[in-house]
Amino acid sequence: MDLDNIGKLRKTHYAAEIVPTLDNKDVVLMGWAREIRLLGNLVFVVLADRSGDCQVTFLPKTKKVFETAQKLNREDVIAIKGKIKKSEKTTRGVEVLASEILVLNKSKTPLPLEITEKTPSDLDTRLNSRVLDLRKPRNIAVFKIRNQILESAREYFTEQGFMEIESPKIIASASEGGAALFPVSYYGKEAFLRQSPQLYKELMTACFERVFEIGHVFRAEPSDTIHHLSEVTQMDIEMGFATEEDTWEILEGLINRIYSDISKKQKDALGVLGQKIKVPKMPFKKMTYDDAVNLLNKKGTKFKWGDDTSREQEKLLTDHSGGPVIVHDYPMEMKPFYIAHHENNPKLSYGFDLLIDGIEICSGGRRIHEAEQYIENLKAKGLNPDSFADIIKFYEYGMPPHAGWAIGVDRLTMLISGVDNIRETVLFPRDLKRLNP
Amino acid sequence: MDLDNIGKLRKTHYAAEIVPTLDNKDVVLMGWAREIRLLGNLVFVVLADRSGDCQVTFLPKTKKVFETAQKLNREDVIAIKGKIKKSEKTTRGVEVLASEILVLNKSKTPLPLEITEKTPSDLDTRLNSRVLDLRKPRNIAVFKIRNQILESAREYFTEQGFMEIESPKIIASASEGGAALFPVSYYGKEAFLRQSPQLYKELMTACFERVFEIGHVFRAEPSDTIHHLSEVTQMDIEMGFATEEDTWEILEGLINRIYSDISKKQKDALGVLGQKIKVPKMPFKKMTYDDAVNLLNKKGTKFKWGDDTSREQEKLLTDHSGGPVIVHDYPMEMKPFYIAHHENNPKLSYGFDLLIDGIEICSGGRRIHEAEQYIENLKAKGLNPDSFADIIKFYEYGMPPHAGWAIGVDRLTMLISGVDNIRETVLFPRDLKRLNP
Repeated sequence: MDLDNIGKLRKTHYAAEIVPTLDNKDVVLMGWAREIRLLGNLVFVVLADRSGDCQVTFLPKTKKVFETAQKLNREDVIAIKGKIKKSEKTTRGVEVLASEILVLNKSKTPLPLEITEKTPSDLDTRLNSRVLDLRKPRNIAVFKIRNQILESAREYFTEQGFMEIESPKIIASASEGGAALFPVSYYGKEAFLRQSPQLYKELMTACFERVFEIGHVFRAEPSDTIHHLSEVTQMDIEMGFATEEDTWEILEGLINRIYSDISKKQKDALGVLGQKIKVPKMPFKKMTYDDAVNLLNKKGTKFKWGDDTSREQEKLLTDHSGGPVIVHDYPMEMKPFYIAHHENNPKLSYGFDLLIDGIEICSGGRRIHEAEQYIENLKAKGLNPDSFADIIKFYEYGMPPHAGWAIGVDRLTMLISGVDNIRETVLFPRDLKRLNP
Repeated sequence: MDLDNIGKLRKTHYAAEIVPTLDNKDVVLMGWAREIRLLGNLVFVVLADRSGDCQVTFLPKTKKVFETAQKLNREDVIAIKGKIKKSEKTTRGVEVLASEILVLNKSKTPLPLEITEKTPSDLDTRLNSRVLDLRKPRNIAVFKIRNQILESAREYFTEQGFMEIESPKIIASASEGGAALFPVSYYGKEAFLRQSPQLYKELMTACFERVFEIGHVFRAEPSDTIHHLSEVTQMDIEMGFATEEDTWEILEGLINRIYSDISKKQKDALGVLGQKIKVPKMPFKKMTYDDAVNLLNKKGTKFKWGDDTSREQEKLLTDHSGGPVIVHDYPMEMKPFYIAHHENNPKLSYGFDLLIDGIEICSGGRRIHEAEQYIENLKAKGLNPDSFADIIKFYEYGMPPHAGWAIGVDRLTMLISGVDNIRETVLFPRDLKRLNP
């Protein structure tokens, strides 16, 4: 293919930066020919890039340039040199009169996906052509919100004295028991992909005290729902010399910070998505599991102690609280082995969940820090302490009291950006059926 | 075991914050009983936490407290309440007179590892007891430097308009060819752990234009050296509408920023490690591969065109340049299929490496962006384009010219913190022989 070379030419502006106040300025734009219209003696090209788009107008007097523009396919990669002109005929009140054009890459036709969304595609088609799908302003907005969540979280954790850790993704044995693990062949040995950094982040409180980790975890659960993925981004904290109540303060501060930063710094993204968000007030409402059971029964839903709440019931609880609610003192039988028993009632635990808008966003608790109890709890859950020998040994040499929690980043992105399916929040989702692209 | 409960008590200070100017202040410290000395009628405990340590003195008049202190084991987890006193007898000119003590967890004795480093342990022993090993100030310093690298990089990339991406770690086929992949069983299908985000980050230039990714990559290379790990943290960028020279500017800016931030913000960590670092001047020296070959031969090392440089030769090149050096225009045969051919000489490529202090820290280049050439290059490297069908299709619908690079975070940490073995830079290293803890 005979393509133009970018040479010394560089983008001077993003498309969205072309505004009427820059009238008469010479600019270089680079992006995708999103729409091409031939109208009488003119060629109009909507040049789109990650910032948005801008109309570029080609006049017949620029003969070679004009002829090139006439032959453009949609999504051809182009660079244009031109002059900004105020214009009342365009929606944004401005256009660029092109004097030069480079065709940096050609696009085949027809496109597998309509980027302008004039013809909507189903999610499967969109994910198969994900790179084109991600050129849509709506999708770029979702990832701006996702990135803001991650950026605000890292800033906040660092301010609060947490050290970032990267614990291993390849592990020798199941971290929390259960069969939901992907096996890896590791130099001929059996290994697994971690389903959480749980055991490692707990260990790290025994040296770095306050730690956080943001990274992929892997769930081999064959759940084909709009809320489940096999490769999930999880945000974890763990605090030494702390109880679950200390972690609530961090959790409330973090959620408040994320919502507040997004409402201030991601106005455009929220606008594109048509989302309005309310920064939740601190402190959040607290409710024991027992009180939640009573409340749900009073509200007329039949709910047995020891049951897990359904989505509808979680919605009832957050609606009743008028905002995020931390449900705590869950039955021990509902929580994993590393959660500490409640000191006043061995049937209860120091485990908790955070619900926002009827969605469980975070799960956490006070942990066991004493080796004998750790082994006892493993046995009580039917797990074999021998498989945890590598972990248990550190509980014998100075494990501090500690507590922590984990937030599902994809779910939080879903909630804040208002998309219906968790797959919308991940660049290249992995699930029961999907391993491509 | 009968342990004390942390109750409402909380740490008021880190050990290193106890200074003579706080004379007479009441404080609560929590940490590990690093050393216990019984001297006459006194008990001296070195209480250590992640910040450093501080002497806590127990007087016999506090009878129960004194008796508890007498019975402490090394690395017991304790909380003490007490009053700060100036003292000329301690190295830091200060001590805390304890009035209360809680024993939050007991430690077994003897310890598997000497944390005070009075008896040095070999690396294998240290990694087996990694959580204890990580209580050493030297190791905490290494991870402060590592975290500063990551923090400075994220800040810098964001300032430069890069969007962070998280591409999948589970992939359907080999990303760069080669056999060095860990197989994963994915719901009964064959999959692999990515060896790099290369192909995905390139795709992302076709929507987000400028992207970076920091994350784990997996190398099933049976290399048992001090420079190789099987789970590696890699820092990647990719820039649309750019050439390799544009990526050099970002690379120089990043390295300069990291060194500058560390020299300003991590003085203590550098001090603990006895490291002095020099912030490299920009722009870095550039040298073609041809010139490097000539230079090496002139310096008396026998070097054939097309050979890879040895560590000694890389040291020669950086010594000659008096700082970091970018070696570019490598032979195409030495570079992967996605690197673009040099326009003036098809035997050469637009691939480059960055060498600092004789270590290859970064590798990158201008990429192919045209589908036909992509397929041709795959074939030339003996790879089957069918295995790349999922990737190639996006090259047919608007892939911009692009360039990028990747930095090994573990290696850079090694270089800046001055440790001898890459395993020192990772919390829980994974290699040919090690999958635990």
